[in-house]
Amino acid sequence: MQYIFLLISLSAIFCGPPSDLVDPFQYEYFKIPYNKTMYSGYLEPEDIPDHHFHYIFYPNDKSDLPVILWLNGGPGCSSLTGAMIENGPFVFIGGTPIFEENKYSWGKFAHMLYVETPVGVGFSYKNDGNTTTSDDVTAQNNYYMLLAFYRKFPEYKNNELYIAGESYAGTYIPTLVNKIIDNSQSNIRIRGMMIGNGCTDASECTKEAKYFPYYKFQFLANHNFISQKLEEYIEIHKAKCQFNKEQFCQDLYQDILTETNLDGTYEYNPYNIYGTCFQPPVETPQGERIPYAKNKFDPFDIIQGHIPPCSDAVGLYHYLRDDEFRKYLNIHPQSDQWAKCQSLNYTKDPRATYHLYPKIMAKGIKILKFSGDVDGVVPITGTIYWIEKLQKELNLPTIQQWRPWFKSNKQNAGNLWEIDGLLFVSVRNAGHMVPADQKEAAFIMAHNFIFDVPFSEE
Amino acid sequence: MQYIFLLISLSAIFCGPPSDLVDPFQYEYFKIPYNKTMYSGYLEPEDIPDHHFHYIFYPNDKSDLPVILWLNGGPGCSSLTGAMIENGPFVFIGGTPIFEENKYSWGKFAHMLYVETPVGVGFSYKNDGNTTTSDDVTAQNNYYMLLAFYRKFPEYKNNELYIAGESYAGTYIPTLVNKIIDNSQSNIRIRGMMIGNGCTDASECTKEAKYFPYYKFQFLANHNFISQKLEEYIEIHKAKCQFNKEQFCQDLYQDILTETNLDGTYEYNPYNIYGTCFQPPVETPQGERIPYAKNKFDPFDIIQGHIPPCSDAVGLYHYLRDDEFRKYLNIHPQSDQWAKCQSLNYTKDPRATYHLYPKIMAKGIKILKFSGDVDGVVPITGTIYWIEKLQKELNLPTIQQWRPWFKSNKQNAGNLWEIDGLLFVSVRNAGHMVPADQKEAAFIMAHNFIFDVPFSEE
Repeated sequence: MQYIFLLISLSAIFCGPPSDLVDPFQYEYFKIPYNKTMYSGYLEPEDIPDHHFHYIFYPNDKSDLPVILWLNGGPGCSSLTGAMIENGPFVFIGGTPIFEENKYSWGKFAHMLYVETPVGVGFSYKNDGNTTTSDDVTAQNNYYMLLAFYRKFPEYKNNELYIAGESYAGTYIPTLVNKIIDNSQSNIRIRGMMIGNGCTDASECTKEAKYFPYYKFQFLANHNFISQKLEEYIEIHKAKCQFNKEQFCQDLYQDILTETNLDGTYEYNPYNIYGTCFQPPVETPQGERIPYAKNKFDPFDIIQGHIPPCSDAVGLYHYLRDDEFRKYLNIHPQSDQWAKCQSLNYTKDPRATYHLYPKIMAKGIKILKFSGDVDGVVPITGTIYWIEKLQKELNLPTIQQWRPWFKSNKQNAGNLWEIDGLLFVSVRNAGHMVPADQKEAAFIMAHNFIFDVPFSEE
Repeated sequence: MQYIFLLISLSAIFCGPPSDLVDPFQYEYFKIPYNKTMYSGYLEPEDIPDHHFHYIFYPNDKSDLPVILWLNGGPGCSSLTGAMIENGPFVFIGGTPIFEENKYSWGKFAHMLYVETPVGVGFSYKNDGNTTTSDDVTAQNNYYMLLAFYRKFPEYKNNELYIAGESYAGTYIPTLVNKIIDNSQSNIRIRGMMIGNGCTDASECTKEAKYFPYYKFQFLANHNFISQKLEEYIEIHKAKCQFNKEQFCQDLYQDILTETNLDGTYEYNPYNIYGTCFQPPVETPQGERIPYAKNKFDPFDIIQGHIPPCSDAVGLYHYLRDDEFRKYLNIHPQSDQWAKCQSLNYTKDPRATYHLYPKIMAKGIKILKFSGDVDGVVPITGTIYWIEKLQKELNLPTIQQWRPWFKSNKQNAGNLWEIDGLLFVSVRNAGHMVPADQKEAAFIMAHNFIFDVPFSEE
């Protein structure tokens, strides 16, 4: 009786769908250190009724704050990693299946929405199980997914929307923003995008970039994984070898692999070059052992339904493959077993998303590009390259010169640089997953960007 | 009675001077997790009888192992930092005055000798209190100090000697080895030197290098403290500005300081750019508060009897300024109050020590040059520069190509590169004080170098 009453009262306050409300009486059972409302269910777009996007939504008590849609990358990786490892209200203590309160949850200043996309990822599914898609189809479907969100939660229609994420979400986000712009009649109040260690330029993450991933080589040389001698040789052949499959360039690539031994047997965490390669036994509650992908120079090559190399996944598999927890999150029986990353039949646009920036900037969409500065997967070197290119091509004035910024205790937090229409923030000693590695710095960064608070200088 | 007996039995086994034996019954009182013999006292050379070098010696039970003399740098910094923070048998738990056993003590494979040098440093003193010295005088006096060690501990005369240390010990060590070579009649069995983040080339640590410390700029640019734009500008003016005081170069240096704000008010640990700037209150047991030196681009500029910026010193001041502990270490009343670093009247050789390498190598002295790869004070960039120069000038063949090595758990530990007569080892994610930051890697490195054990490859 009490239970029914609470459901009614919560749904009355938040107007959210009662069927998706996560039972708050179970917080204690699952040792979740949280005392607010959360929803978990599916966004089921009218236009593509065979698509079922699983989402988790943590509304903030203060209704007028912005909504942040968070997307993880891959393609094929679940945004529940963002929710439960990075910037959600409760996250795992590193390398354990124990939840702790996230003091630096982005939910403290926003309504946080995590969606598993495209369908086939995590608990999201398509009726026929077909996961064939592309950048453009994903963007179109993500747009329908957003409309479905607003249909389910119409009271957030007037809130500002920020779309955030990392890695291949560097493609999902601008392509989705582009669809929103093109469909202005939907009146989605898109205000900004925040992309961490994201794929943007054609020289990053595309199939063609892999022939000779120059910015990764430069990053590894900067951090002394590659000798000075070889670095100079790479520099000489850069112009010739980028996007080039010819034998000479492939031989040079092979020399780099030999010198770095990154496809070898030792443990090296490509997502944080100074971090530990994290490989404890990861088991489901049923005792099934989940294999890690082998260490590779480019981890995107080998995400095949396994755990990406060196990743922290103990807590995720413990909870998200638990039948009780699955019920608790209102997961449909049609949803597959959850995996951190799934193999999709995915076609990438060889232009990546760099070409969309002029249009997005012209619309006044705020842009934060952030970079964990010790990530070897989508490294800071490539990001700086394309921002400089963009500045030059569009003749954008510098608003803030490159300078350090710092955290509350005055510890150096990284550097920033602002050109007209785009803020770049590096996060010192953070890898590919910035809000996981440097929670306080990531919190300050996202907060200050959204609310136009100047970053501490001195 | 039991006490007298133990003293006799220990001195009988080790033949060391009973007056310098540190009272083992007090280990428990001072919470020292150690059960072996240790000596603390003074080395008082015959040739310079007004010099009193304080030393701590931890002999190993196995008498035929090598002796390692460890020296910290500065000039002016105490080697007790090495003993109690880095590679001694018991060290402080970071940031606390609590001793713990050092699982990776170099004392496990050697007799460890720590000497505070030159006089004026730490507990070492000269009768007249005058601390005027130079590279050459220091080398000569360190040689006399070594003779005094062998007079005090003659049973180690036939053991192989390795001289190790970091930072400005990069000067103390080759200059001392040079004196040993020049005085071959003393029959000191010098076998090798091991230098971490050490001053070697004239472009590092000399007065003249400070006009335009190019390799620091390069290092900071590699790690994104400096913008790509400014980095390119520095690169263009490198040849002109190194060792050059002219206004244009000083202005460029000022631009770098402005962009990095490294002389600003925020906390940045120059000794480990990804580490915390460590500044808890440091107090003596009497409640005296010890001030930290202000954060500066070049911390060597401002060591004035204070704690170098961001350094861990809580335990050192707690113990080494404690009157009881001082008595326990057999410290003379003439010794000054202990300080981590002291200001000396010190004249540096503008040539540094690079010019000594051909001679030392010709004598077959083994050389290990190691580098914590995230140190901004004597960074890896400068070390690689002069090793490449040495290889070219002496036409030395490469013995091992640049390649990664790893620790026992297969985690990547850094890279190595061997030229005929010199082994270079980088230690990943270690700063200026390698054995403090990466104890296991430092242990493996020193052990493998001394005993000619190949470094793990796969």
